[in-house]
Amino acid sequence: MLIVQKFGGTSVGDLERIQNVANRVSESKKAGNDVVVVVSAMSGETNKLLGYAEYFSSNPARAEMDMLLSSGERVTASLLAIALSEMGFPATAMSGRKAGILTDESHTKARIEDINPHAMKELLKAGKIIVVAGFQGVNKNGDVTTLGRGGSDLSAVAIAGAIGADLCEIYTDVSGIYTTDPRIEPKAKKLDKISYDEMLELASLGAKVLQNRSVEMAKKLNVNLVTRTSFSNEEGTLITKEENIMESPLVSGIALDRNQTRISLMGVIDRPGIASDIFNKLAENDINVDMIIQNKAHDGATNIDFTVPLNDLNDAKSVVDGFVKSGEIKADSYNEDICKVSVVGVGMKSHAGVAALAFSTMADNNININMISTSEIKISMVIDEKYAELAVRGLHDAYELDK
Amino acid sequence: MLIVQKFGGTSVGDLERIQNVANRVSESKKAGNDVVVVVSAMSGETNKLLGYAEYFSSNPARAEMDMLLSSGERVTASLLAIALSEMGFPATAMSGRKAGILTDESHTKARIEDINPHAMKELLKAGKIIVVAGFQGVNKNGDVTTLGRGGSDLSAVAIAGAIGADLCEIYTDVSGIYTTDPRIEPKAKKLDKISYDEMLELASLGAKVLQNRSVEMAKKLNVNLVTRTSFSNEEGTLITKEENIMESPLVSGIALDRNQTRISLMGVIDRPGIASDIFNKLAENDINVDMIIQNKAHDGATNIDFTVPLNDLNDAKSVVDGFVKSGEIKADSYNEDICKVSVVGVGMKSHAGVAALAFSTMADNNININMISTSEIKISMVIDEKYAELAVRGLHDAYELDK
Repeated sequence: MLIVQKFGGTSVGDLERIQNVANRVSESKKAGNDVVVVVSAMSGETNKLLGYAEYFSSNPARAEMDMLLSSGERVTASLLAIALSEMGFPATAMSGRKAGILTDESHTKARIEDINPHAMKELLKAGKIIVVAGFQGVNKNGDVTTLGRGGSDLSAVAIAGAIGADLCEIYTDVSGIYTTDPRIEPKAKKLDKISYDEMLELASLGAKVLQNRSVEMAKKLNVNLVTRTSFSNEEGTLITKEENIMESPLVSGIALDRNQTRISLMGVIDRPGIASDIFNKLAENDINVDMIIQNKAHDGATNIDFTVPLNDLNDAKSVVDGFVKSGEIKADSYNEDICKVSVVGVGMKSHAGVAALAFSTMADNNININMISTSEIKISMVIDEKYAELAVRGLHDAYELDK
Repeated sequence: MLIVQKFGGTSVGDLERIQNVANRVSESKKAGNDVVVVVSAMSGETNKLLGYAEYFSSNPARAEMDMLLSSGERVTASLLAIALSEMGFPATAMSGRKAGILTDESHTKARIEDINPHAMKELLKAGKIIVVAGFQGVNKNGDVTTLGRGGSDLSAVAIAGAIGADLCEIYTDVSGIYTTDPRIEPKAKKLDKISYDEMLELASLGAKVLQNRSVEMAKKLNVNLVTRTSFSNEEGTLITKEENIMESPLVSGIALDRNQTRISLMGVIDRPGIASDIFNKLAENDINVDMIIQNKAHDGATNIDFTVPLNDLNDAKSVVDGFVKSGEIKADSYNEDICKVSVVGVGMKSHAGVAALAFSTMADNNININMISTSEIKISMVIDEKYAELAVRGLHDAYELDK
């Protein structure tokens, strides 16, 4: 098999751990696989460099930030290649540039535009293990770029797609994707397989093992993604296309997102296009609106409720303030003490009654549902935050996810 | 003026010092100069990375070492560019590659083959300060290379030559070149100017402010080199071509080299070519032979004495052993308790009696001279190490270098 293995910051957090990674990579090689390894910077290194830059400027030039931040991954890649070669497994370290990772020009949050796998393929043909510095590429001017948060995962997935790897393993300190957060529900079980779409819903809803960008790219490039831990030999979770999963369970997992705020707009003026005005203004300010409910009260006034991530709250408030000042909204109120619980599963496409069970579970636990939104493969409910754990455990139990 | 300023590891040893360097560079810019800055890694950083590599291998692959070691300078260059831009002096950080530094393919000790100054010239034209990561270049395969010890100085000198800089300032923690080591002779004075050839003699003889490679390159490219400290505004020492120095003093300085061992070969067989055999064998083993004396004893046997650097001693011993075993040398002996004192000055070319004063100074101090070697611009004497300080002070005084 041709395998891409990506190791995150904690997996390469010190020299001993890098040696452990070398051992693990060499096992894959010994088993007859061709291996491309993608590494992050040693944990803490990127934050250290960010702190250095902050010392000099609160708004450093992005090209220089990329030159600065890309150095950590180069160090890890060199060291791992040295360790592997010493063990008798010839390895070559490559920067993003050498690996042929071409990006656009947005420094510090570049997008991969193309990968030229020629150099990697030649080395694989020669039997070498390749160790690529993750998180980085090069733009068409030849300047180093970095890919933003989760960038090393992206590097790994994109490389796996470009060289046609059979598998892309993402090693972290978590052993895989669980049916829900095990800190809330100890009976949570690790999933063997999950579809890209389910993972996208679970990721955006709080299971922060993988960034959505990586899952989206894996889906686009049809890369079989595995998340597993580098600290044991435990099998991980395969994220793959729906067709590869023989029997989809009705529900795969319960996600919890505490990072939401509910914004209520009361007495919104009755003029065509007012809702569009409000949400366009929010979008212009890069505010990520999630759920929206609009209703007419008995007195004829329109109320609009929506949720935004907690860190967008201040920006959202100033947008709303504008409409309040102009008189187009009578009153506004904010509630940070809410959370969003979601039931996710591709199986629900073809089964009725999945939503009904969620609602009745809430009712059985005396939990009031504030807002509801559904898609083909998920049901999301906004509830008071104090009921978060109760709701997650109740739903986990109701859908028999511990079985 | 177009100035290249190079700051070594201690000058950029922490964030505060990098800010100090930024202040100093901005002063040069404010004074109307165009400035290219070359920086080393923060002090300790390169050794830390070397230690990391050693953890995994005692003989790491050189290409990986270069990728590893070149990261430290990239960090400093990025940070300094960020600091300068924040202060309102737009600056661009460049890796060796971006600065157009092309080297041969010898990883970890590459030689600069060419510099393409196009990108730097464009940025200078646009009024930018350029901050180049020293110590590194790129070979024709596009792989990062490093230049070995003193590499950042070399980067600076080569860049100064390539862009036709008026001045190349090398900032260290030493304020310039002194007439002798001030720790031995407190009356030592800083030299305002010195010729390349004098500096080469002083450097190889122990004044370790600049590596010979850099001085040789400055001479070849006709670069005006200044060594000065980054910790004060004190003027440094200009190293330039002889013609630029109006009145050369008779003697510029007294150098001391404690790092020498004397090897004595007794009863060397009387056959043509034996000396050539011995010294060729030493050369093949990369042993740096300095002074050589050959003489015939009364009994007709030939004795050969020579000096080698202390760290070449073991290698030299095994070469000599070979000749002893084959019977071509009767006996060998080694003396590590010696040192070499040198009187250096371009003025002595045109003045008689300079050597005589050196010898009589030794005699006045009851110091026995073991070996003598002279060139156009220096007189070197090997003496017992215990007389080192006495000899240096005596010569410094005799040539009135404190005046």
